[in-house]
Amino acid sequence: MKINCKEFRVRERDKVDLGTWPTRVDPVYKSKEQYQKVLEHHVAQLSLQQQLLYASNRYALLLIFQAMDAAGKDGAIRHVMSGVNPQGCQVFSFKHPSPAELQHDFLWRTTRDLPERGRIGIFNRSYYEEVLIARVHPEILLGEGIPGIARDHVAIWRDRYRSIVDLEKHLHANGTRIVKFFLHLSEEEQRKRFLARIDAPDKNWKISAADIEERKFWKRYMKAYEQCLDATSTAEAPWYVVPADDKENTRLIVSQIVVDTLEALKMTYPRSGAERRRELQAIRRRLVR
Amino acid sequence: MKINCKEFRVRERDKVDLGTWPTRVDPVYKSKEQYQKVLEHHVAQLSLQQQLLYASNRYALLLIFQAMDAAGKDGAIRHVMSGVNPQGCQVFSFKHPSPAELQHDFLWRTTRDLPERGRIGIFNRSYYEEVLIARVHPEILLGEGIPGIARDHVAIWRDRYRSIVDLEKHLHANGTRIVKFFLHLSEEEQRKRFLARIDAPDKNWKISAADIEERKFWKRYMKAYEQCLDATSTAEAPWYVVPADDKENTRLIVSQIVVDTLEALKMTYPRSGAERRRELQAIRRRLVR
Repeated sequence: MKINCKEFRVRERDKVDLGTWPTRVDPVYKSKEQYQKVLEHHVAQLSLQQQLLYASNRYALLLIFQAMDAAGKDGAIRHVMSGVNPQGCQVFSFKHPSPAELQHDFLWRTTRDLPERGRIGIFNRSYYEEVLIARVHPEILLGEGIPGIARDHVAIWRDRYRSIVDLEKHLHANGTRIVKFFLHLSEEEQRKRFLARIDAPDKNWKISAADIEERKFWKRYMKAYEQCLDATSTAEAPWYVVPADDKENTRLIVSQIVVDTLEALKMTYPRSGAERRRELQAIRRRLVR
Repeated sequence: MKINCKEFRVRERDKVDLGTWPTRVDPVYKSKEQYQKVLEHHVAQLSLQQQLLYASNRYALLLIFQAMDAAGKDGAIRHVMSGVNPQGCQVFSFKHPSPAELQHDFLWRTTRDLPERGRIGIFNRSYYEEVLIARVHPEILLGEGIPGIARDHVAIWRDRYRSIVDLEKHLHANGTRIVKFFLHLSEEEQRKRFLARIDAPDKNWKISAADIEERKFWKRYMKAYEQCLDATSTAEAPWYVVPADDKENTRLIVSQIVVDTLEALKMTYPRSGAERRRELQAIRRRLVR
């Protein structure tokens, strides 16, 4: 059973209306057991591809996760990426920028954490927050002290989208493959998950009053996501809108997309040429002496 | 079956003679199947403990791996730590320092990569290289431009050990737990593994002539390790000398030590106090309204 991932991909220059993109689709698994089996299969494929990525040392892979709270970003990262050698995979979570980070341009702090060649880097939230939360709450943007910031808000977002697209094209040209996931959750499913966090004492630590407060801005967030997806989904760095009301289904779709992306690179283990083989045989003779 | 890890621990102020520490012991598993089962059990325990470490957000764990080439550092990290959420676990491999890094004191570059609270950090090689390879090859030390470096070599190493012990005590006092593994490989087993890397085309990329060259310095490396273990194994940051001639056995011992270290912290999920429970119930009422 191969999941068709294309239907979740935002094509370049698409106009995205998130109301028409599903938060729930027919599950790609038929039972809990089958879910486990498919996930394990994907994780095994991913583990193999990651070893190839490391050994061939040509590409890096950057996975970006964005979503509303409780959409399952952490769970997707945990379930899809556990099983991959942590030596070849680094996850960075971006929370509120520090005052020192705010003294730099908005791409600076995440750029330091981009994956090196041969590695998978995962951004749990990213520079995209700067066109999402900063757009929903303009006071954040106004606090960033950028010259001329009060003049023309529309131009600011257009400039930021362009900066992002340019950065991603630059990274692609230098070997980094980029895949971006928007985990698309419904307002009602978020409500249920917040309630579950209150009702399970072990999960209390995950919730705050501020999380609930943000629900008031739901429509404005969706608007910000739509404009962001319109402007920044490119052939080099596509966005996928993954239905997120069913966590298990989300994980299978995400893992399939990551596996497909890596397999498309057709990586192989480095092979020794004639000269290198002679060198190795010389080493061999020294070792058996 | 519980592995007794104490026998591999270097006690504070022990005098270490590596000739008397085994590179091979009776395996703690009886078959390949049993090895797999025990390893999976350890990895599951580790995964649970890592979630607690993250949720309770009090401690960090730093695991340091040092060894001769082909001792199985990478394999141990991969087999023991795959299965742990990569969001809570970061691996850093330290190769030759860059010219910019050499402009700083010898603890600088690794300090930047120490694990934050709630995370597991793994150093594949570390600042210990600065009292190992730098001691075996004094030209490395002499290239570091430290004032008075040519004057008194003995004092240099004593100073470096003290710097390391002081750093580790400081980290311990601030919540970082440190465990250090020396994977103890025999010269003969290294020879076999190098030959295997030459004979398997997919592994050719792992070997270089320089690796063979270093074998000439084996005795001097052992001497440097002995003095390092003597001077830097403390109650707060113990060294374990793990027999490394049997890879499967190494992984079971390493994983048991990591599990024991985390379990000894007796971590629990954060519980809500009375005031927090009232706050959560207020949130609950807003959500069900």
